[in-house]
Amino acid sequence: MPGLHIYLAGPDVFWPDAREAGAAKVTLCDRYGCTGLFPLDSELDLQELSPYDAGLAIYRANIGLMQRADLVIANMTPFRGPSMDVGTAFELGYMAALGKPVWGYSLDGRLYSDRVAGEDAEIDSDGMTIERFDMADNLMLIGAIEDSGGRLISDTAEHSLDAHLAVFEKVLRLALDRA
Amino acid sequence: MPGLHIYLAGPDVFWPDAREAGAAKVTLCDRYGCTGLFPLDSELDLQELSPYDAGLAIYRANIGLMQRADLVIANMTPFRGPSMDVGTAFELGYMAALGKPVWGYSLDGRLYSDRVAGEDAEIDSDGMTIERFDMADNLMLIGAIEDSGGRLISDTAEHSLDAHLAVFEKVLRLALDRA
Repeated sequence: MPGLHIYLAGPDVFWPDAREAGAAKVTLCDRYGCTGLFPLDSELDLQELSPYDAGLAIYRANIGLMQRADLVIANMTPFRGPSMDVGTAFELGYMAALGKPVWGYSLDGRLYSDRVAGEDAEIDSDGMTIERFDMADNLMLIGAIEDSGGRLISDTAEHSLDAHLAVFEKVLRLALDRA
Repeated sequence: MPGLHIYLAGPDVFWPDAREAGAAKVTLCDRYGCTGLFPLDSELDLQELSPYDAGLAIYRANIGLMQRADLVIANMTPFRGPSMDVGTAFELGYMAALGKPVWGYSLDGRLYSDRVAGEDAEIDSDGMTIERFDMADNLMLIGAIEDSGGRLISDTAEHSLDAHLAVFEKVLRLALDRA
């Protein structure tokens, strides 16, 4: 279904080539007749703001983009730990509460429990229980994808921009087929 | 304001003493005349379910609790990395989208950027930009607290149950004063 607005969530904004990555995803959305909304900080004028107020301005801009979007496709590849980026996780919760479909991809195909520890461990190095739900990440994220009608596509690959774009395009096609 | 329902979010469910921790937070809520909703897996009958379906059942139960709640108080102490638990981050997004106040506490008083790297580093060990917004965690989380009228209270302390309860009670009192 053309004309859809898609929120492009993920820690891609922290990549050294964030602008290029965002532009490439937006171009792919264009090619399929929809509009990609990429939260790129630099489209705001943050010059005069304190760091904290700049952060708030970006928050508000991202909330605005999510309100305009019809669905979200999130990069859920683990970021600074065994789980996805927390800002992106927040955004999946926000979109789920608005009743919008949640889609995602990851370049790490393992189960969450296997990333945290070996197959037999029941607690992690801090003594915390390792949840074993045969899910790729925390159950709130996977539950939201399942119940919103989306899907998570995983592909174990080098973390290159091309690899991200290839699996992103797979998800995009599935999401547009189902919309 | 008594009678409020408070969603008790956090990775506390993964603690070895999860039941005790949940019960202690619920008791504190009781003492202030409100109801704590703690997402304890074991109140569901998950015996017959596959791990994946058990995860989904817990997801749906937690969504139900959030819909009943008037506000959320989240344990945002870093979990398995420099950021808070992703499931909890999802829940903050969910509650923010429902227009409900988001409150939190952390037992790590440092700025996010200082947890990820030293004060001068601009990129992390994977080459990712370290955002510097003078915030305790990702800007989506801090923005939601700010714009929903909540607060994040940090207290650098040993990670004991008593320390959690002490700072949780501070947040609870502030939240009830403001409600």
